[in-house]
Amino acid sequence: MSAIYDRVALIGLGLIAGSMARAMREKGLAREIVGHARSAETRATAAEIGLVDRVFETAAEAVAGADLVVLAVPVGAMGDVAAEIAPHLAPGATVTDVGSVKQAVVQAVAPHLPDGVHFIPGHPLAGTEHSGPRSGFASLFQNRWWLFTPTEGCDPLALERLQDLVRRFGAKTERMDAAHHDLVLAVTSHTPHLIAYTMVGVADHLKRVTESEVVEYSAAGFRDFTRIAASDPTMWRDVFLQNKDAVLDILGRFTEELFVLQRAIRMGDGQHLFDYFTRTRAIRRGIIEAGQDTAAPDFGRSQPGPGEG
Amino acid sequence: MSAIYDRVALIGLGLIAGSMARAMREKGLAREIVGHARSAETRATAAEIGLVDRVFETAAEAVAGADLVVLAVPVGAMGDVAAEIAPHLAPGATVTDVGSVKQAVVQAVAPHLPDGVHFIPGHPLAGTEHSGPRSGFASLFQNRWWLFTPTEGCDPLALERLQDLVRRFGAKTERMDAAHHDLVLAVTSHTPHLIAYTMVGVADHLKRVTESEVVEYSAAGFRDFTRIAASDPTMWRDVFLQNKDAVLDILGRFTEELFVLQRAIRMGDGQHLFDYFTRTRAIRRGIIEAGQDTAAPDFGRSQPGPGEG
Repeated sequence: MSAIYDRVALIGLGLIAGSMARAMREKGLAREIVGHARSAETRATAAEIGLVDRVFETAAEAVAGADLVVLAVPVGAMGDVAAEIAPHLAPGATVTDVGSVKQAVVQAVAPHLPDGVHFIPGHPLAGTEHSGPRSGFASLFQNRWWLFTPTEGCDPLALERLQDLVRRFGAKTERMDAAHHDLVLAVTSHTPHLIAYTMVGVADHLKRVTESEVVEYSAAGFRDFTRIAASDPTMWRDVFLQNKDAVLDILGRFTEELFVLQRAIRMGDGQHLFDYFTRTRAIRRGIIEAGQDTAAPDFGRSQPGPGEG
Repeated sequence: MSAIYDRVALIGLGLIAGSMARAMREKGLAREIVGHARSAETRATAAEIGLVDRVFETAAEAVAGADLVVLAVPVGAMGDVAAEIAPHLAPGATVTDVGSVKQAVVQAVAPHLPDGVHFIPGHPLAGTEHSGPRSGFASLFQNRWWLFTPTEGCDPLALERLQDLVRRFGAKTERMDAAHHDLVLAVTSHTPHLIAYTMVGVADHLKRVTESEVVEYSAAGFRDFTRIAASDPTMWRDVFLQNKDAVLDILGRFTEELFVLQRAIRMGDGQHLFDYFTRTRAIRRGIIEAGQDTAAPDFGRSQPGPGEG
């Protein structure tokens, strides 16, 4: 299989970039992979484990001569990185990002990029609760969506080439409008994460009352929540700040719904609760049918979790 | 290995009772296992798959001559079942239940039981999102907690015998006060479930706007939420109605916390968000250290989920 890009520059060397590096290596999709991370410790680790072929001290050096540049930093840092690398980008290069928010990234990055450089915002729906240069693995993107939000006038050949790359990772690709992306992700990912963070915080307060029991007897769903709430704090801080409007919209709907259920509990309205829970169960079936998950109890974990009371 | 009970009567033949039946069979812990379910369809299925040795039309018939009776029905149905079986219980028999709420079950069941019958309320912290007589499996309780909330004056030999049974299933046992149990479970399980139900309900409304995308691009945490929200509606309706006070208490705390985070997003207070998310990440480590979960990314699923943006 021939390489799709000659030189790929990864800016940021965390879970996503590290997984891309491993997948490109494994499948020979890039002739050379170079990288940069802001933290000296991350750069040292990346060099030590041979995550990329060469590690550079600055993003500007890393992007020189690259025909694909991947911005894999927290979304709040995208603008500064774009400003730094812009004068050093090769003509005809493709710049993409892997941020979880798209409108804010487009606004922060696009104004800096010179004519003749193809900017194609992207977002792989993949991750784990781990972060850092050692956390990636080549199969991370297999059978996962990689959404692109190209702007009008995007070069179709550059887009097709980039889509080809991520499909070789095993990802499925789709294009959508950036604003639409941000709304969909606010409901499917961003708001659920905020809620999980909140619930774990509540338990932390209560822990002081009941000592270690909350942790010791942590059942699902709480255990599932803690896994979500263990995700990278910097990444998530930026997601909420950069997708503020959509998240606040969904949070408002969420609070309304929660208050209606809370009232049903207070009033003893069992029929309302039963009907609500029956509807949500049907949504789960839709997700299994869409192939986004498995019907196997508990994903084949040896220790069952959800549904326990 | 010799049997611990001579005849075990399972009242209710869903996930928990079915898993108990399979575990007892596999390990030879009961000489005979009989059962009853209110639904004729469930009884027919249980008979067809040989879940228990004999299926009875009524709970009263099932408990006759049993030295262990397990109430494995929704917590809202415990009182009626107790009233029905009380006159038919064998002297010296042990009655336990597997309900997710303990104070309400004690109040509903205890007054019906005759002197000389040992009532030992219990709660296995185990389950999946599946339900019904076909959903059980013998290893469900392995390495899971089985909490008992015996009342004062509980016969120590009867308690030890019952604990011995569930330990043979692979469960770890602990005793605690019923009120304390209900508070701990409200924070570790009941409120997280309500929140997951709510978030999935919000997505359901939004789905009408974005068509099938919310389902199609469902990432973790939403996917984790849908799994939680797929749990049995009857069981969960009863949990919320029967543990009303503790759930409303925790919901109140949750809403307060959520509003503080929501305000931080609205005001752009990134430091507050970062500090909060850093604290919740530490709680996750505590749970892994307590042995309630694994640090393996995504529980070894082939398709990673959480942390994706």
